[in-house]
Amino acid sequence: MEVIQAPLKMQQRAEGWRRKGKVIAFVPTMGYFHEGHLSLMREGRRKGDILVVSIFVNPTQFAPGEDFERYPRDMERDLKMAEGVGADVVFAPEREDMYPPGFQTFVEVQEVTQHLCGLFRPGHFRGVTTVVAKLFNIVKPHIALFGQKDYQQLVTIRRMVKDLNMDVEIVGMPTVREEDGLAASSRNIYLSPQERERALSLYRSLLWAQEAFSRGERSGRRLMEGVREILQREGIREIDYVKVCDLETLEDIEGEIEGGALVALAAKVGKARLIDNIILKEGEVGKDHA
Amino acid sequence: MEVIQAPLKMQQRAEGWRRKGKVIAFVPTMGYFHEGHLSLMREGRRKGDILVVSIFVNPTQFAPGEDFERYPRDMERDLKMAEGVGADVVFAPEREDMYPPGFQTFVEVQEVTQHLCGLFRPGHFRGVTTVVAKLFNIVKPHIALFGQKDYQQLVTIRRMVKDLNMDVEIVGMPTVREEDGLAASSRNIYLSPQERERALSLYRSLLWAQEAFSRGERSGRRLMEGVREILQREGIREIDYVKVCDLETLEDIEGEIEGGALVALAAKVGKARLIDNIILKEGEVGKDHA
Repeated sequence: MEVIQAPLKMQQRAEGWRRKGKVIAFVPTMGYFHEGHLSLMREGRRKGDILVVSIFVNPTQFAPGEDFERYPRDMERDLKMAEGVGADVVFAPEREDMYPPGFQTFVEVQEVTQHLCGLFRPGHFRGVTTVVAKLFNIVKPHIALFGQKDYQQLVTIRRMVKDLNMDVEIVGMPTVREEDGLAASSRNIYLSPQERERALSLYRSLLWAQEAFSRGERSGRRLMEGVREILQREGIREIDYVKVCDLETLEDIEGEIEGGALVALAAKVGKARLIDNIILKEGEVGKDHA
Repeated sequence: MEVIQAPLKMQQRAEGWRRKGKVIAFVPTMGYFHEGHLSLMREGRRKGDILVVSIFVNPTQFAPGEDFERYPRDMERDLKMAEGVGADVVFAPEREDMYPPGFQTFVEVQEVTQHLCGLFRPGHFRGVTTVVAKLFNIVKPHIALFGQKDYQQLVTIRRMVKDLNMDVEIVGMPTVREEDGLAASSRNIYLSPQERERALSLYRSLLWAQEAFSRGERSGRRLMEGVREILQREGIREIDYVKVCDLETLEDIEGEIEGGALVALAAKVGKARLIDNIILKEGEVGKDHA
């Protein structure tokens, strides 16, 4: 496995592979790997001739006051894990490699970013789409893999790829959960044992929504309120949002759910801001209503 | 010569060429060709194995109230001229091909667009960078050619390419002038014979600045004022701007010019908004000061 820091070197390597007809699969990450990252890498390994993993804690996607400085990092461990799943290259640029002096260009998706986390993290998605556009130009992937845990990110990137005619297939992969049900996240490390116990109510509340949906509940508002009640009852006080929304536009569904919906939530538990979501789909969960 | 309308078909053709190791040269245009366009195409023909020319009057780079509707179009003539210089493909999408319903992603260069025309044409450069990013992803060029007449556009695109790590070489080509000195532009067709006569003072004023610079004048402010005086004396009343500015950042140079500078102007003559510019460089024009 090769570790590359310079964007230009990475780009030249990628162009060489493409010339030879190799299929490049790409997993962009901020490092501090967990099982979620590994599942993306394993799928990338299956789908591509070449697997590139990037590790870059992207400053432009952190709003002022967020956890950019203390975001967990462990390059040595990450490199071993990437090698363990068979990555060909880890691309690990430094901040100045990606944002040299004079940098001033941003990619912005305007509508799907105006919901959910977009309302609580100003500039976050602009930072995400900008760095992903850069990474796509550097790594030249045929396929790029993202986790559904960051559902809004996935929708935003799909939108960018479509709108800007990027020749990349975006693959969304199911959320990986730890044994207790907590969605795998690098930020889980911020949780004390007691906080972690409380954080489990996030997934429990989503399971409740899924079950209610499978029993025939179709009111977006009632599902939303039910999830919120569970969170409050279980001691989650700093709720950024609980939303039932359209799977593509992310617009609120207050009334009747038709076909499917996303239930998404974000809450602070101790120092950690955690997000989770579940997809409700007729015929998949509530088979009797298909 | 092939004419392609569908972005996906164009992209597949481009990917096929790249796989075979062909060098793709690209000239993006809004059509209604003049000698300026042809000079870009001829240079593209020399530099590439494949020459692609796009024709698309891009709505997102026109501000409300500008001349999008009446911008001159003549596809039949354009296709003959492109074929005449040996283009392999003309890519001519329709509006809905480039901006289908739900489109919401923009590329924005933030600083160099805050000068000159950027101040008078809100959203213009965002429209330019967005469509050029799209066209680059569709046509996959190794080399793309732009005219120096649109100097700010050239600087903005170079900045976007650098900032977003686009693997495209940007080639800037000298302004082509008609016999009387007027910079070639599709918008010159808006001019009556009398207006055209008046419009010649644009280039004359720039030639004065060049001469003054070669005689040793180094004050940005005095050059700017001299150009403005000439325009006013010659009956150009609607001056958007006359600027002497840095060749890279486009920031005003009021004091001493060091090395080089751009003299740029924009003015309305009748219904036409015309732009022109000249590059002042020590050692090139004023050899005695090198």
